[in-house]
Amino acid sequence: MGVERFDAVAYDTVAAIVNDLCCVGALPLVAAAYFATGSSEWYAEQSRTASLLDGWRRACEDAGCTWGGGESPTLPGLLAAEEIELAGSAVGALPAGRDPILGDGLQAGDEIVLVGSNGLHANGASLARMIAGRLPDGYATRLVDDSLLGEALLAPSIIYVPLIAALMERGLEISYISHITGHGLLKLMRSPAQLTYRIASLPPVPPVLSFLAEQAGMDAPAAYSTLNMGAGLALYCREGEGERAASIAVDMGLSALLAGRVEEGPRQVILEPVGVRYAGEQMQLGGEGSGSA
Amino acid sequence: MGVERFDAVAYDTVAAIVNDLCCVGALPLVAAAYFATGSSEWYAEQSRTASLLDGWRRACEDAGCTWGGGESPTLPGLLAAEEIELAGSAVGALPAGRDPILGDGLQAGDEIVLVGSNGLHANGASLARMIAGRLPDGYATRLVDDSLLGEALLAPSIIYVPLIAALMERGLEISYISHITGHGLLKLMRSPAQLTYRIASLPPVPPVLSFLAEQAGMDAPAAYSTLNMGAGLALYCREGEGERAASIAVDMGLSALLAGRVEEGPRQVILEPVGVRYAGEQMQLGGEGSGSA
Repeated sequence: MGVERFDAVAYDTVAAIVNDLCCVGALPLVAAAYFATGSSEWYAEQSRTASLLDGWRRACEDAGCTWGGGESPTLPGLLAAEEIELAGSAVGALPAGRDPILGDGLQAGDEIVLVGSNGLHANGASLARMIAGRLPDGYATRLVDDSLLGEALLAPSIIYVPLIAALMERGLEISYISHITGHGLLKLMRSPAQLTYRIASLPPVPPVLSFLAEQAGMDAPAAYSTLNMGAGLALYCREGEGERAASIAVDMGLSALLAGRVEEGPRQVILEPVGVRYAGEQMQLGGEGSGSA
Repeated sequence: MGVERFDAVAYDTVAAIVNDLCCVGALPLVAAAYFATGSSEWYAEQSRTASLLDGWRRACEDAGCTWGGGESPTLPGLLAAEEIELAGSAVGALPAGRDPILGDGLQAGDEIVLVGSNGLHANGASLARMIAGRLPDGYATRLVDDSLLGEALLAPSIIYVPLIAALMERGLEISYISHITGHGLLKLMRSPAQLTYRIASLPPVPPVLSFLAEQAGMDAPAAYSTLNMGAGLALYCREGEGERAASIAVDMGLSALLAGRVEEGPRQVILEPVGVRYAGEQMQLGGEGSGSA
């Protein structure tokens, strides 16, 4: 694209990691980077390297953690000379006196708040590359809001750590948190609990996600179980607390809505606005494997 | 090769991680895996997957840590469908009441114990692949000890965690520890301290390493600054403590020798048996990037 945007990709990588971490109520302390290249020559292009490092650094700042080094192996034979693969890990700590949020307290009556995403959030990048590759204008394709596909794909993910920190500081009772990444809104039933998750309102879909779903020929059940479709994070709050959680998010500049509730019933997700029901067996625990590059 | 040896590769990956970690005196608590494939079909071959998981699990056991999950992204377009890339991370803790070993106490007079390696230790794998690729018999080439190149390359790395734990338990005064990986024995001056590291005795060189060095046309300065050449770990002990450290290692079934000492002088490494001197500027801190796949 002629512009160095490795900052956005690096930012997304950190965001994917720290957003997963803060779902258990732990706030990140240190993030480690893993940059694998096909050739160490990758780093010779200084503006590109500077962009990469800058994005990783800014994401650590926004997540409130230290960048604790990492590894940068050269893997010729596995990766092409012009390629870089980004991954990483982070360690966090629970605020003093708090138990981890593991979903034990999840129960019928809990309210589900969906916090808005602003695009891919690093999930579906391979699909996006495939689609861009077969479009006549590629990444320069204009979306319905007049933005360019390439730019929209590179919108840095939202980091939800400050939101989780604020909710805990204000003593809001959270019974569960799910980061909506791979498997889309199937992740609403990430917990193994035998409960029904009924969603009455969905957030607006970012144009880049409706474009990808349409180009990939996905119907609503496929799209909502592949992409985040505008919902980046699900907060499960005690009955009567959902509106307050949403307003704390909105006060922080995020979009959020009280979207539904947890009910007695079989393990399933019901998305009423789009007429979709996902049965429990569509989201099994273990070996999910959401991507990070 | 017709045999599933992904256990050895997985074991090596964990070993590379925990051996780095224990150099600061921290013992690993949890290791996370990162398995990236070109296609999720990689896992369909069950004996291969079982071998991979078994190696990772055994290495965690040998390092005394828990396998804490991880990520298994599919990265088509970056990795070929038949490829897998292994990486990971680990978190450890210092034994109660102990400070991290960061080298502040490193001083002239300290004794250097070299603990034996048993082969590549996951460093130089790309070089080994390149060399194997141009040999008429490839991985089936016989080495001087009659072993096969391929088998020797897959000898699982030694995990040094139990040794470090034992040395600390017995109250041995360790001023620094260096894990000899990328950059070979240049890593003896991993610390930025202005000190000279004089090595009077070197450990025996595993046949696979002398074979690779010879095939790559390396002279001693090149070989000893690329491969571990038989020295997997350097322990820097207070004067008079080196023999005891070496004998603790030998009692645990490792090979080890009191190899040299730290001296006043410019930052440099002197390997007397092979007539090699490395000046300080050959080993700068930061951005070292040792490999992990």
